[in-house]
Amino acid sequence: MDLLKEMLLKEATVVNSDVLKVDSLLNHGAHPRLTMEMGREFARRFKGEKITKVVTLESSGIPVAFCTAYELDVPLVFARRKKTLPDDEEVYSVRVPSYTRGMMTDLIISRELITPEDSVLIIDDIIANGDAAKGLVRIIELAGACLAGIGIVLEKTFQTGGKWLRELGCRVETLVKIKSLENGQIVFE
Amino acid sequence: MDLLKEMLLKEATVVNSDVLKVDSLLNHGAHPRLTMEMGREFARRFKGEKITKVVTLESSGIPVAFCTAYELDVPLVFARRKKTLPDDEEVYSVRVPSYTRGMMTDLIISRELITPEDSVLIIDDIIANGDAAKGLVRIIELAGACLAGIGIVLEKTFQTGGKWLRELGCRVETLVKIKSLENGQIVFE
Repeated sequence: MDLLKEMLLKEATVVNSDVLKVDSLLNHGAHPRLTMEMGREFARRFKGEKITKVVTLESSGIPVAFCTAYELDVPLVFARRKKTLPDDEEVYSVRVPSYTRGMMTDLIISRELITPEDSVLIIDDIIANGDAAKGLVRIIELAGACLAGIGIVLEKTFQTGGKWLRELGCRVETLVKIKSLENGQIVFE
Repeated sequence: MDLLKEMLLKEATVVNSDVLKVDSLLNHGAHPRLTMEMGREFARRFKGEKITKVVTLESSGIPVAFCTAYELDVPLVFARRKKTLPDDEEVYSVRVPSYTRGMMTDLIISRELITPEDSVLIIDDIIANGDAAKGLVRIIELAGACLAGIGIVLEKTFQTGGKWLRELGCRVETLVKIKSLENGQIVFE
């Protein structure tokens, strides 16, 4: 994904040595043709797996997860971050820390939308400590569904999320790996 | 959009005479090929307008807004519902009531992402009282940008949002109009 690296160098801002602000590309918007290329790349990498649904977490994961689901021709489900649904018994709920919000949030998926027959590909935008991805993995376990793999646009390899998920035995594919944000510079692996 | 009407009759649930639950299609997931058809339809309807950006509100508006932006080949911007960005001065912020949440929320768009040169198409999933859409219109005014139009997937015409926006002089295009949810039935116009 050389085009993605180019766009990151052009449009992302290093906030500090832990945080990259990627508003126009991921967190607050999207360049649709680039996002569709990302979705195609995930679909290509996971094409040998049985996948019946793509699952992501609102909001920044939605565009790239949508494109992946479009390419694979399967439904998209996006977990919600807090309860807006009417009945507790209708949802799977997992409490996780939010890296960017500095607080605990509940990830919620309606029981109707993931069944034990599903084989799920998780797609998300950025992995730092991996709390959101771990929460989604836990929800898929609660639903009795199969986890086909995890696709992440940006992995900050100096944080532990990707490593943790791989040690758990998950297949994790990342489009771009960032090994450092020191001194205001994005350094790719 | 006959296919959308068919899918609504198949997958949506009438919660009460005001609220339609459309989890699998809009609020909690998407059927990507249907969503892409919606985006194509909005792009077709607004093709005579100058449009430089598509703007929506997290989260349920993102898939259809993404597809519209993809078809029009312009960037997508999604407003965030609360402050996760670092600095107040960097964002436009408007406080609006949230129909589904029963509380006030702040809609936020980074100043970097909308400029006075922009001509914006707003896309959202459902219009009830129109508070979210009005909030987005207000942000576009604050940014000094031009509003090219508003596209809404589902308009509940027994509520006032669509009427209010049209009276304001906005061009509003809706894919499906619902005139009643009485007695647990979806009645289309």
